Amino acid sequence: MSMVVNRRDIAFYLNELFDLASLLDTPLFNEHDVESVEAIFDVVQQIAEEVFLPCAAELDEHEPRFENGQALTPDSLKDCVTAYRDAGLCGATFGHDVGGLQLPCVVTNLMQGILMAANAPALGYMTLTAGNAHMLQACGNDALKQRYLAPMVEGRWFGTMCLSEPQAGSSLSDIRTLATPVGDGSYRLSGTKMWISGGDHDLTENIIHMVLARTPDAPAGTRGISLFLVPKHRVNEDGSLGDFNHVVLAGLNHKMGQRGTTNTLLNFGESGECIGYLVGEEHQGLRNMFHMMNEARIGVGMLATMSGLAGYLYSLDYARNRPQGRHPGDKDPTTPMLPIIEHADIKRLLLEQKSAVEGSIALLSYCSALVDRQLTAADEETRQRLTLLLELMTPIAKSWPSEFALEANKHAIQVLGGYGYTREYPVERLYRDNRLNPIHEGTHAIHGMDLLGRKVTMANGMALTLLAEEMLPTINAARSARELVPYAQALEEAWQAVLEAVDSNKACPDALLRLANATPFLDAFGHIVIAWLWLWQAQVAQEKLADASGADQDFYRGKMQTCAFFYRYQLPKVYHGLSLARDLDATCVDMSPNQF
Amino acid sequence: MSMVVNRRDIAFYLNELFDLASLLDTPLFNEHDVESVEAIFDVVQQIAEEVFLPCAAELDEHEPRFENGQALTPDSLKDCVTAYRDAGLCGATFGHDVGGLQLPCVVTNLMQGILMAANAPALGYMTLTAGNAHMLQACGNDALKQRYLAPMVEGRWFGTMCLSEPQAGSSLSDIRTLATPVGDGSYRLSGTKMWISGGDHDLTENIIHMVLARTPDAPAGTRGISLFLVPKHRVNEDGSLGDFNHVVLAGLNHKMGQRGTTNTLLNFGESGECIGYLVGEEHQGLRNMFHMMNEARIGVGMLATMSGLAGYLYSLDYARNRPQGRHPGDKDPTTPMLPIIEHADIKRLLLEQKSAVEGSIALLSYCSALVDRQLTAADEETRQRLTLLLELMTPIAKSWPSEFALEANKHAIQVLGGYGYTREYPVERLYRDNRLNPIHEGTHAIHGMDLLGRKVTMANGMALTLLAEEMLPTINAARSARELVPYAQALEEAWQAVLEAVDSNKACPDALLRLANATPFLDAFGHIVIAWLWLWQAQVAQEKLADASGADQDFYRGKMQTCAFFYRYQLPKVYHGLSLARDLDATCVDMSPNQF
Repeated sequence: MSMVVNRRDIAFYLNELFDLASLLDTPLFNEHDVESVEAIFDVVQQIAEEVFLPCAAELDEHEPRFENGQALTPDSLKDCVTAYRDAGLCGATFGHDVGGLQLPCVVTNLMQGILMAANAPALGYMTLTAGNAHMLQACGNDALKQRYLAPMVEGRWFGTMCLSEPQAGSSLSDIRTLATPVGDGSYRLSGTKMWISGGDHDLTENIIHMVLARTPDAPAGTRGISLFLVPKHRVNEDGSLGDFNHVVLAGLNHKMGQRGTTNTLLNFGESGECIGYLVGEEHQGLRNMFHMMNEARIGVGMLATMSGLAGYLYSLDYARNRPQGRHPGDKDPTTPMLPIIEHADIKRLLLEQKSAVEGSIALLSYCSALVDRQLTAADEETRQRLTLLLELMTPIAKSWPSEFALEANKHAIQVLGGYGYTREYPVERLYRDNRLNPIHEGTHAIHGMDLLGRKVTMANGMALTLLAEEMLPTINAARSARELVPYAQALEEAWQAVLEAVDSNKACPDALLRLANATPFLDAFGHIVIAWLWLWQAQVAQEKLADASGADQDFYRGKMQTCAFFYRYQLPKVYHGLSLARDLDATCVDMSPNQF
Repeated sequence: MSMVVNRRDIAFYLNELFDLASLLDTPLFNEHDVESVEAIFDVVQQIAEEVFLPCAAELDEHEPRFENGQALTPDSLKDCVTAYRDAGLCGATFGHDVGGLQLPCVVTNLMQGILMAANAPALGYMTLTAGNAHMLQACGNDALKQRYLAPMVEGRWFGTMCLSEPQAGSSLSDIRTLATPVGDGSYRLSGTKMWISGGDHDLTENIIHMVLARTPDAPAGTRGISLFLVPKHRVNEDGSLGDFNHVVLAGLNHKMGQRGTTNTLLNFGESGECIGYLVGEEHQGLRNMFHMMNEARIGVGMLATMSGLAGYLYSLDYARNRPQGRHPGDKDPTTPMLPIIEHADIKRLLLEQKSAVEGSIALLSYCSALVDRQLTAADEETRQRLTLLLELMTPIAKSWPSEFALEANKHAIQVLGGYGYTREYPVERLYRDNRLNPIHEGTHAIHGMDLLGRKVTMANGMALTLLAEEMLPTINAARSARELVPYAQALEEAWQAVLEAVDSNKACPDALLRLANATPFLDAFGHIVIAWLWLWQAQVAQEKLADASGADQDFYRGKMQTCAFFYRYQLPKVYHGLSLARDLDATCVDMSPNQF
């Protein structure tokens, strides 16, 4: 079995849940068909298994190093970049207008997911670059796009996004990097950025930074932040490289995981003139950056999910092949040992992983499909409704996998026991890699506050109504399939509890108290969305089961049993988190710092 | 503040919860008094802060290496051993009869805990040795004790325990190592042992292995296992070292954490004669080993707890000193940033840690105090009741901290954000260290099956009755303190749910189904024990609060608020796990391996 993808499962999401064929009939995507998409998946799987996966452990052990002011990367990482570029994948997420493949988002996210499962730190450079280029495409003027876009789409230059500073991690309103206009339309940057992934490396001849900074007269806080394009090396009019632009690598952060992606401290303009170019309007930097952030956040959800998937596939294969022990009550030591997958608690650990990981893939495929529905929407009203839905889903898409696919990686180690705790097996590395995800692109707590403090109440709660409408067809279909009826009821009850919590919560005038339990609310809300997506999967599986045979029967029965598992082992937990938010529980707020 | 211990908290357990003064009045311990114990804690804290803590990061980065068939350790580890030995701590857990300090268990476990918080992998060698020597003392004949005991009590030789084999990790009934009698009372060992902590090193001139093996005529399964003492170097009658005994280091395991403790693959007798000596009776090996295992399991609980404590103290200090952001609703960016400890979700992350870690310390101190009560019991009946209680508590003492102090370490990283994810800060190392604990000394699942399959029903459920009797004084006292009444009720209700689950479960004739949800039951049972210990702490704190002032007021209020937190944020979760066990939920059992 493949250690990076379950192609049958991918086909299930694309063809049986999200109707790829219809999407490929729209004018935007009709140069592709289901077979040509399959062929691209074949290429991606091959690169993942033959280039990315074999060097993942090495890249973790021999991480990029800091020498003479530069970040030097191992050759195996360069091989990954070359394979990705040579297969034409750098343009996968772009349209024909800039030389891209013009593929649906639901396809490209799953494609990248396969490479993430194989070697997430290696892929990081390419996804960051795509995000950067998308932002440039959306917000930059023609001159900037003309000079900087093509090299990034072609993968000749890589890109980063520079938000955080040493004194301002989560608090963007307190960033201090300064961009001073010099009268010719350009600016001079000075300041320090922290936690910049891919901020330096020797993989490409240039690096294009997207930098949040303040102009000298800017108002305090987030309303005074502007966005600048700042190349590592200046670029001449003909596209050739000019002088060094004084973006200086001050040091590398040495992380617990994700070691193959350099994470940097960058000084702008300390050693000499650092030229930057405004992207979009002055003081609109944060809004423009969020063009990229939403994409980045779905990307982080995918990253977390795929570390979880890789651990699940590895531990599943191990559990099928490792003999150990016998059933309780069958203590005869002369009988052969069972493969551990026969033990109830190993099944539980595998079901925890399968339900979290495949639930997350469904979630991120759904969010990607929303993007595709936006792109192919018939009218502006539909587009606006989809925008609201996506806004609501973004904190879930980023946070739920970050929390629960990390749990899945914990379980993968447990399945392997002592072996899982050693660096000879990949599961401990995946667990370390995944621990980053609840921290970057907005911490878990920040997404909780975004969800409870903004998203559930925006547009008079319209996003919640839209989500309920999305869930309704699943609930109705499940109500007419006898064995799914209890789940449909359980989902509706849980949704009522969400609405109660939101109603009670928004009536409170004290913002501190209102958001005191935003994180438990976030986790509970995510559970309910995942429960819906499991019911959807079970309902489709149940329909298909009648005509299925062989491996497909097992596949569909597995989907239905995993749905049962999620409703029995996970969904009941939501009431506790929702009650904390509903009751405005003040236990945490009331603890004074001196009492710890 | 100290990063390895909260002395005020230690004093609370010893003096306000477990009445150390009365214990030190008993004949067994009356050479000590509260002041002399304090002085020993001073020494231990000093060694922890000045010797163990400063090299913890280095020992993780430069782990022992395998060269020319030997495990070589860094000098800093040797400094830790020397400091521990020179302070006379090797004898801390032994009686006067063998030159030990004859201290109560509740004292020695907390003492060792301080060193675990500072550098658990360094202390591992010494605690393994003490466990080995305790087993020799309990089960060995006089000749063996005369030759091998004193050097271990003095810390000149170290010891190990050798249970697992490559093909038999959790399944001891399948071990194959052979011990063949040669007629002179000694045996010749042959076989391979895996996962042996401290199995080789250059810290002491000899290593004494306690090895589980089969004699040639032994019955299959655990009833055929015997215990052998096997020195690395043979020992002459005068105690001097003889020839190499052919215990060969075949390799080191490279772990995710706990890197300072060598973890080895050992070959016995492959390169030449490997002499072993029977400890106790033939075929009684497992029973004899369990003299050490119960101690080892409380030790693992302490290990997990103290990694959790170290992370909690570090993240607490960080949260008090790191400014970031402002309160929700207070968005004025010109006001100074708050220390993050003022944010509700940071308080939640700290309360999760405090409740798990201090709850675990209370749990392990309680178990240690049970040992002391056994040792000082007036009659055999009392001793037997305490034995039953300890048997019931052992799976909780090992497993609850392993699961929830690991969660605490996850939260400590989150408090530090990106910094916490780097190896420049200790919290990621502590998280990696702690991930071992749900695996070794019996996996989490195995302790669940021990608890639900054996402990709750042994002696007609007597152990449960005894635990209820232990909880009763706390519940009664809480019932007369108005603000604690709801907690007393909540605890009683949760306990009723335990009894229901046990009753329903034991009526099921199918062992596979009965134990299918043993792990959720284990976690829930542990939560209820911890809830009781928090109520006990809150009830004592509430009494003391009336006469307290200054820092003591904050301390007691903090205890009460953390109790409130545990009852609000954690205790409600138990009903879900208990219902799975009560209902004999078959969702996991019913998932067939092909359906994954």
